[in-house]
Amino acid sequence: MLTVSYDGTNYCGWQIQPTGITVEEVLNRELCRLLSEDIHVLGVSRTDSGVHALGNLCVFDTDSEIPPEKICFALNQSLPDDIVIQSSCEVAPDFHPRKRDSIKTYEYVISAGKVPDPLRRRYSHFFYQPLDVEKMRLGAKYLVGEHDFKSFCSSHSDKEYTVRELTAITIEEKIISDGKCLDGSDPVIGGSAGLREAKEIRIRISGTGFLYNMVRIIVGTLLRVGTGFWEPEKVKEILDARDRNAAGPKAPACGLTLLEIKLL
Amino acid sequence: MLTVSYDGTNYCGWQIQPTGITVEEVLNRELCRLLSEDIHVLGVSRTDSGVHALGNLCVFDTDSEIPPEKICFALNQSLPDDIVIQSSCEVAPDFHPRKRDSIKTYEYVISAGKVPDPLRRRYSHFFYQPLDVEKMRLGAKYLVGEHDFKSFCSSHSDKEYTVRELTAITIEEKIISDGKCLDGSDPVIGGSAGLREAKEIRIRISGTGFLYNMVRIIVGTLLRVGTGFWEPEKVKEILDARDRNAAGPKAPACGLTLLEIKLL
Repeated sequence: MLTVSYDGTNYCGWQIQPTGITVEEVLNRELCRLLSEDIHVLGVSRTDSGVHALGNLCVFDTDSEIPPEKICFALNQSLPDDIVIQSSCEVAPDFHPRKRDSIKTYEYVISAGKVPDPLRRRYSHFFYQPLDVEKMRLGAKYLVGEHDFKSFCSSHSDKEYTVRELTAITIEEKIISDGKCLDGSDPVIGGSAGLREAKEIRIRISGTGFLYNMVRIIVGTLLRVGTGFWEPEKVKEILDARDRNAAGPKAPACGLTLLEIKLL
Repeated sequence: MLTVSYDGTNYCGWQIQPTGITVEEVLNRELCRLLSEDIHVLGVSRTDSGVHALGNLCVFDTDSEIPPEKICFALNQSLPDDIVIQSSCEVAPDFHPRKRDSIKTYEYVISAGKVPDPLRRRYSHFFYQPLDVEKMRLGAKYLVGEHDFKSFCSSHSDKEYTVRELTAITIEEKIISDGKCLDGSDPVIGGSAGLREAKEIRIRISGTGFLYNMVRIIVGTLLRVGTGFWEPEKVKEILDARDRNAAGPKAPACGLTLLEIKLL
């Protein structure tokens, strides 16, 4: 089993696609080369195009005699620098990670400010409207627990059973102080109105199961609460509606990272 | 005057080069289009190939009647997404930013850990050897103040006067907890040895003037102190040697960002 991290910017997601290169395809190719066997990895989370991961998991069968813990180091030598294996270990031959109960944690990063920061653009969603984080937290509370998340599922999904359980949502707000002077004083630059007053908002969502686009639709909905377009209580109505059209838009892929999958 | 931020990954630095595209060149091109005038920006800091900036500055002359504070928004519409103007303002016609006294602040980011994080690779230098940050701070102390930094200047430089003044160096160490569960417990993933135990070390260096490659040679030297290869006192010897060969190697460009230029 491999713990796989990747910058999803240049990939059409995890799963092999006819339309472009995917993480699964690159792993299969490099494992075949490394182990001289026909390898097909089985991933736990099939992340979407442009979504990142720090702790996705996959398994594969091999007859290799390379010690399991060393495979990550050998594989990292030949992988492109936007895919890195964090660790590797042996699991039982009948171990099937998708059939195991797990808690997945996703993080969605929002860069808030007047002007985007080019060093954050690949891994966050720039949002210039002011956000009331306390209201977002109130709205998010309605989503924790077991609910029918049909309103938060892409209409392109063919899943009929849409009840899922979210175990936690946390929303952190941080002032970005990159532009601050070392002595903590405000930078004043040649009479301009100061450098950067930016905030970063990190939404972490953990759950035992997720529907297609569920995290991104939740974030799109919470953004509408944060701007004041919707009151926090509206989230409850959206859940009850069981209708994708009731919820907010899908937030962009670049802000989303699969942080970890905890097998129970 | 523009406050310019950029992801330097895909640029051959600031200054126009025959060998590849530069930030200066893109700004000239887009300003010419926007203002329908022949514009040549004059940048304050000519950052190297691959180096990033949050607060570089440049000035240009124009007859445009667009309000100066609005030029940044208009220009950002047509710039590629790795160059963003943070603000714009009017300065006196005889204002020459390179002739003004200033304090520049650079930040160098080191990702420390066993395995690189692909989401940090573009904006930090991955370093897998353990680093003693306290020793790095002791070594850095010798560099603060006015010194002859000849040992910390690229041998390709033609500068003869190599005395410069550093006003501050701070070194911050932060544990990266992206892989931690929301409840703060340690992640244990399918029997693997846990997710990621990574540190980020941020070295901020401020000064009134810098020689060619000076920050990156200082960082390369402090890394040797951090690993224990050199004792902190060695930094004093290196300064006294006034010889580029005495110092450590130049650290890679990707870890370096020009944070701000404070005009005095």
